[in-house]
Amino acid sequence: MTTALTVLPATGTLDFLSLGALIHRLDPGPVPFRKATSCAIHVSGGEFNTAANLSDCFGMRTAIASAMVAYPVGELIATRVRAMGVTPFYKMFQHDGAWGPNMATVYSDRGHGVRAPIVFYNRSNEAAALLKPGDFDWDAIFATGVRWFHSGGIFASLSETAAELIIEGMEAARTHGAVVSFDLNYREKLWGASGGAKRAVSVLGRIVEHVDVLVGNEEDLQKGLGIRGPEVTSKSTLDPTTFIGMIEQVVERYPNMKAVAILLLWKRVSVWCMGMAQSRVKLCWEP
Amino acid sequence: MTTALTVLPATGTLDFLSLGALIHRLDPGPVPFRKATSCAIHVSGGEFNTAANLSDCFGMRTAIASAMVAYPVGELIATRVRAMGVTPFYKMFQHDGAWGPNMATVYSDRGHGVRAPIVFYNRSNEAAALLKPGDFDWDAIFATGVRWFHSGGIFASLSETAAELIIEGMEAARTHGAVVSFDLNYREKLWGASGGAKRAVSVLGRIVEHVDVLVGNEEDLQKGLGIRGPEVTSKSTLDPTTFIGMIEQVVERYPNMKAVAILLLWKRVSVWCMGMAQSRVKLCWEP
Amino acid sequence: MTTALTVLPATGTLDFLSLGALIHRLDPGPVPFRKATSCAIHVSGGEFNTAANLSDCFGMRTAIASAMVAYPVGELIATRVRAMGVTPFYKMFQHDGAWGPNMATVYSDRGHGVRAPIVFYNRSNEAAALLKPGDFDWDAIFATGVRWFHSGGIFASLSETAAELIIEGMEAARTHGAVVSFDLNYREKLWGASGGAKRAVSVLGRIVEHVDVLVGNEEDLQKGLGIRGPEVTSKSTLDPTTFIGMIEQVVERYPNMKAVAILLLWKRVSVWCMGMAQSRVKLCWEP
Amino acid sequence: MTTALTVLPATGTLDFLSLGALIHRLDPGPVPFRKATSCAIHVSGGEFNTAANLSDCFGMRTAIASAMVAYPVGELIATRVRAMGVTPFYKMFQHDGAWGPNMATVYSDRGHGVRAPIVFYNRSNEAAALLKPGDFDWDAIFATGVRWFHSGGIFASLSETAAELIIEGMEAARTHGAVVSFDLNYREKLWGASGGAKRAVSVLGRIVEHVDVLVGNEEDLQKGLGIRGPEVTSKSTLDPTTFIGMIEQVVERYPNMKAVAILLLWKRVSVWCMGMAQSRVKLCWEP
Amino acid sequence: MTTALTVLPATGTLDFLSLGALIHRLDPGPVPFRKATSCAIHVSGGEFNTAANLSDCFGMRTAIASAMVAYPVGELIATRVRAMGVTPFYKMFQHDGAWGPNMATVYSDRGHGVRAPIVFYNRSNEAAALLKPGDFDWDAIFATGVRWFHSGGIFASLSETAAELIIEGMEAARTHGAVVSFDLNYREKLWGASGGAKRAVSVLGRIVEHVDVLVGNEEDLQKGLGIRGPEVTSKSTLDPTTFIGMIEQVVERYPNMKAVAILLLWKRVSVWCMGMAQSRVKLCWEP
Amino acid sequence: MTTALTVLPATGTLDFLSLGALIHRLDPGPVPFRKATSCAIHVSGGEFNTAANLSDCFGMRTAIASAMVAYPVGELIATRVRAMGVTPFYKMFQHDGAWGPNMATVYSDRGHGVRAPIVFYNRSNEAAALLKPGDFDWDAIFATGVRWFHSGGIFASLSETAAELIIEGMEAARTHGAVVSFDLNYREKLWGASGGAKRAVSVLGRIVEHVDVLVGNEEDLQKGLGIRGPEVTSKSTLDPTTFIGMIEQVVERYPNMKAVAILLLWKRVSVWCMGMAQSRVKLCWEP
Repeated sequence: MTTALTVLPATGTLDFLSLGALIHRLDPGPVPFRKATSCAIHVSGGEFNTAANLSDCFGMRTAIASAMVAYPVGELIATRVRAMGVTPFYKMFQHDGAWGPNMATVYSDRGHGVRAPIVFYNRSNEAAALLKPGDFDWDAIFATGVRWFHSGGIFASLSETAAELIIEGMEAARTHGAVVSFDLNYREKLWGASGGAKRAVSVLGRIVEHVDVLVGNEEDLQKGLGIRGPEVTSKSTLDPTTFIGMIEQVVERYPNMKAVAILLLWKRVSVWCMGMAQSRVKLCWEP
Repeated sequence: MTTALTVLPATGTLDFLSLGALIHRLDPGPVPFRKATSCAIHVSGGEFNTAANLSDCFGMRTAIASAMVAYPVGELIATRVRAMGVTPFYKMFQHDGAWGPNMATVYSDRGHGVRAPIVFYNRSNEAAALLKPGDFDWDAIFATGVRWFHSGGIFASLSETAAELIIEGMEAARTHGAVVSFDLNYREKLWGASGGAKRAVSVLGRIVEHVDVLVGNEEDLQKGLGIRGPEVTSKSTLDPTTFIGMIEQVVERYPNMKAVAILLLWKRVSVWCMGMAQSRVKLCWEP
Repeated sequence: MTTALTVLPATGTLDFLSLGALIHRLDPGPVPFRKATSCAIHVSGGEFNTAANLSDCFGMRTAIASAMVAYPVGELIATRVRAMGVTPFYKMFQHDGAWGPNMATVYSDRGHGVRAPIVFYNRSNEAAALLKPGDFDWDAIFATGVRWFHSGGIFASLSETAAELIIEGMEAARTHGAVVSFDLNYREKLWGASGGAKRAVSVLGRIVEHVDVLVGNEEDLQKGLGIRGPEVTSKSTLDPTTFIGMIEQVVERYPNMKAVAILLLWKRVSVWCMGMAQSRVKLCWEP
Repeated sequence: MTTALTVLPATGTLDFLSLGALIHRLDPGPVPFRKATSCAIHVSGGEFNTAANLSDCFGMRTAIASAMVAYPVGELIATRVRAMGVTPFYKMFQHDGAWGPNMATVYSDRGHGVRAPIVFYNRSNEAAALLKPGDFDWDAIFATGVRWFHSGGIFASLSETAAELIIEGMEAARTHGAVVSFDLNYREKLWGASGGAKRAVSVLGRIVEHVDVLVGNEEDLQKGLGIRGPEVTSKSTLDPTTFIGMIEQVVERYPNMKAVAILLLWKRVSVWCMGMAQSRVKLCWEP
Repeated sequence: MTTALTVLPATGTLDFLSLGALIHRLDPGPVPFRKATSCAIHVSGGEFNTAANLSDCFGMRTAIASAMVAYPVGELIATRVRAMGVTPFYKMFQHDGAWGPNMATVYSDRGHGVRAPIVFYNRSNEAAALLKPGDFDWDAIFATGVRWFHSGGIFASLSETAAELIIEGMEAARTHGAVVSFDLNYREKLWGASGGAKRAVSVLGRIVEHVDVLVGNEEDLQKGLGIRGPEVTSKSTLDPTTFIGMIEQVVERYPNMKAVAILLLWKRVSVWCMGMAQSRVKLCWEP
Repeated sequence: MTTALTVLPATGTLDFLSLGALIHRLDPGPVPFRKATSCAIHVSGGEFNTAANLSDCFGMRTAIASAMVAYPVGELIATRVRAMGVTPFYKMFQHDGAWGPNMATVYSDRGHGVRAPIVFYNRSNEAAALLKPGDFDWDAIFATGVRWFHSGGIFASLSETAAELIIEGMEAARTHGAVVSFDLNYREKLWGASGGAKRAVSVLGRIVEHVDVLVGNEEDLQKGLGIRGPEVTSKSTLDPTTFIGMIEQVVERYPNMKAVAILLLWKRVSVWCMGMAQSRVKLCWEP
């Protein structure tokens, strides 16, 4: 982490390119899903959301590389991607009408009072999990000028080929001078079904070697990278030195890392410790 | 078809038991699905609908034998089954939170003017396709008194074990004196993915050997059983002799058959030719 | 209260049977009712809600004994009772199309800020008020095995025959070994129109003589049973000894009582003092 | 019917005053009521609708004399009466919070295809049925100048005092020179519960003696006044002479009658035979 | 301010008459307007709201003098004015179908969390801005007995003729003995486009000379009248003497003023300092 | 019309570019606007709709040149333009918060039975009317390859500068080899307010001189271009020779015209007479 983060000038076509799965989320609002009679259909995706919000809120020129299925759910999703101002790079799949490949579904309700929100998926035969190295012409994409490349741990967990595709994209990004970031976004349920915690640490460890900027919360660092976390007692006082300790571990292991951002929740407001400030930088640490 | 159809007296616990898959249908109403922002959630299933409507509209005591997954979509479906007054017999499955087994989804919109309605599925890793002989204690179920047993071609198409389960249920039904009916409900898309038209004719042919009352439209009989249909020219005049000819072919092949009902559409109203009258019997033919 | 509460083993068909009125609630949401243009239709009932929630949230096998009218509002209510998994025992009434007997209506809005919620009824010619001893075959019902019998003060207030029916049901319950509980649920408006506070104390006093477990808040005990309540000064500190004092008065008057639960509101959370814990037992007192 | 219909000049305050019950209608739209989860709340009333539509569509200055209950349903209704531009004359009643007196409820769904629409009421303890002669200061109302007074058979059926109030209002109207009209609007269900068909003929017969303009369909005239109707065979050809024959019977019996309007349905469009044209006068007959 | 405020007895026809613009507000609810797909249509207006709420909440007999356009948006607004029980005095305008004159539109969303609510207008070619002295027959209106006349700063800002109309109305009100009140309601955006802050102070200064009761918050007094406000330091302690000082300045400048009410926000609750109590009078100051 | 219509190969960036105003349409659905309490917000525009539908339904690469205002209504519209897959070329305007410049509003309801649909506008201070020659860099736009350029009569009517901009765009299009089309879309109301029928014929006549393909219905040709139309008697038989006659007049006057398409309504289905087939070409006429 001896080198400062260098971002290319805005002379190319894209400020930001993300790689990940696009999903549709069924949201019955305040009604618990098990009692729902209707639901709103949202379009989302851990990796896509970064591109969508940088475009919609901050006016950046962003793009998503993803799988797209030629059927009405896919068209619905593609329309929303356009509406958010995000340029698509799609590997197309045909739907057989009954079994897929599918755009994954996320079911979520909002909880109410003591009733917790519930989130679950139907990712069976998901098109994004079929993505593999070679599906995108990275050189052509990066040749138009891309300043930042991003992916995340949800996409990494979907399949072995998805993880390899992330690495392929990161290597192309570095070759073309783009900053590379990764959001660990550790989901026990997803890794559990595709090889378990052990595979997660191995796969994520390989990916993070290509990363300039790492994003995650405390649990992501512990479960996704095997970094030792803070003592429970220090948690309640939100002692920043604990988090600085975790970041030091990451930098020691990945000496090319340029910034690490840890998300904390403090009095119900998200704050960032170290580096990349999404909302408000509370501490800035320079190795 | 020399023996009349004999239905047990209503001294048992059930008038009607159906075997099939339960699904949830996402319905955006008049908006095409590819432009939907919300949808109603209905509970349906080709085989279940018979049990639900006989209970809800005619006050009959009906039941459904099906697969049920212990997760919110399953609970939503089970609640609606109860609301329709249908007694459930469930083989339970656990959901892994991400890939299933799932309660299948049907996406459908209603079309508008020249735009046709669109129907497609996500049946990937569907719990009902995992059902197999031995999953239900038929003897215990029929011992309480069941007058009629029903299944259909959608469920038959889901997997080889589903088709075998139908035959197992029919054999138990006949042993206990219940009438056995089957709705061919031929869906090219579903059979196409699980062996094709050839397998359909072979599987459906074996099932129909156990049937007292067969239901279907002209296309079902042709594609599902390989029965020769009417000439196109006679269609427009809706000549009943053509349909009588089809029924004669069925009876010739399956001599134990007691009734065959063919659904016709005549001036946008469904009418039945021969036997079982769902709405209005137009012709009654006794061989 | 020298004998411990004994609950039958779960070998029968029902864990819990409630007796009371079923109503439909018209709810315009955040809009005040006087400005509403539409409303949701909910199904409810003080006594029914216990059976519904024990079934829906805790998976218990519960039932409701109530009046049901053969008209669309009744069918709507019966469908929701089934959906909640509650077994119905209905005394049926025919509707004359214009004056009843009716399933009662509750109108309620939610209030907003300084505007308080408003609740009022149309219970005119309510079928449940016509219920009377002899309407249910208690022996047949309890013979299948029922562990707990419950009723409440709303139903008791509807008519003299309703109160007598409660006592008849409690006597049958005790004969068959079921625990008997009663929720005082004192509603001044309902008693006011059917004899006033004096009749309330007389009727409720007779009912409570048959009760093992009594539920109520401080006001219920004072107005429904004439028990002396806590001093206003002690209220603010939520001194549990005051409530213990009220419970001691109840037990002194009804020596067969096995448990008394008083609902308190403490920092906007409901807590229970003494015995039956709905959410969180704060104190447990054994006489 | 030798005298022409004379309408006062528009120099007074009101073109039209109607007397009848105000109701609220719960309308779940295309969903059958027994399956409704929400409904729209409309304000209506057979006699009120004439005043509301003459004001809203034709800009006339109209009023309603009715019962009003001081509770949220009443306020909701009074707001809509104002919104329609109809001046209210209310006899006020207080609501006891639980049993009434109530503003009556009409439940109605719209039917769909072969499923017919369903309409039923909760008129139990309806305030309008408590209206009686003396409740309105007719002389003060008519003194401001009223050109037309109207009432109808739904209100007449509610109670004996309601029918007497209609006659009292009609007598005051004639004294002040207003035209008097009456819509028979015969509802078997309502008369059935309050004395039956015989009482209907007797009560309506007395009312019609005070009427200048009588409105009704064929069935109203037969069942409400005992007038002999057309032969079934002539119906299909919609022979106007048949209806002229019915009108002749009415005029013979009530020689002061100035116009009779019979509503026919012809090819799904309402047409009027004889006199008062609501939509399109097809025939005009002068005795 | 030596004379007490004298309000006429309630023997006339109106308790309160307000003069101002009627608008329709498009409200997408919690969704930001830029992402809205639908919106509720409300009827509002700074000056109208006082008349509407005094009628709807407190049962007062109120009226609005305003511009009304004969087109569907106007009819929608007029219906809501009637529904609120407010008597209208309208100067009518004809709409050309495309450019106006228009009833103004307010677009507003509610914000959410850190996202602030957004309010903006389409007041282009607004009918209310075309109102001018002579448009209302004040003498005829006040001759029926009006106890209080009110207008406000939003209407004053719309055009020079609107401001002159306010003064004309106030003079007529004083002639007929009505109390005259004015709500400064200073909107920088509206004054900015019609002459700027300087014109605001000049116009408002002339209007306030005719006022008995002045309403405003601290910013209104400073920007609308050029009154010196409190020091920022004293603000946080909400020192009432500061506001008394502002009121003293107003009274010194306008010696006929009888009451001044300053709206404060204290712990998110609106409180009034001095005189006219809308919700809760905290201080009452008599010069 | 001796030269065939030549369309450039699809080697450029756009198949179709339209020039016109973008509007938002407020649609209360089946409720008449004057009684609406809410409305859907649609994005539309006579000229934009061609680009939107060619993109959304037929997958063409289309664009719109228009005015855009930097405020929430503008952002809402821009999002929908992106969602439809239409590339925007915007001349930006700033909104003053109260008077504009505005994105125009169209109010429309759908009618019901005998009640006709109602359409009216608020186009006061509309940004699109401020567009003028020089606002777009046509050479840069066409240099990327555009096959077809389109505009229409609604935009032409908005202002003199809008009409001049159409001609400027058409000249650039012809220079770059793009086909030029124009939809007369004659709206009496819009021309009436901006110079009347006489100006319409003069302006439209000048525009049509630059057009290859002219679109319109019979009334458009008569009122917009002053072409003599068919006799009323021939209308009912839908005699195509009448329309051929109208087309002959157009071609005689504008000899460079390559195709004329007249829209007819025949048995409630739109059919096209001559040339350009939107839905179904009924006749094809080559001069």
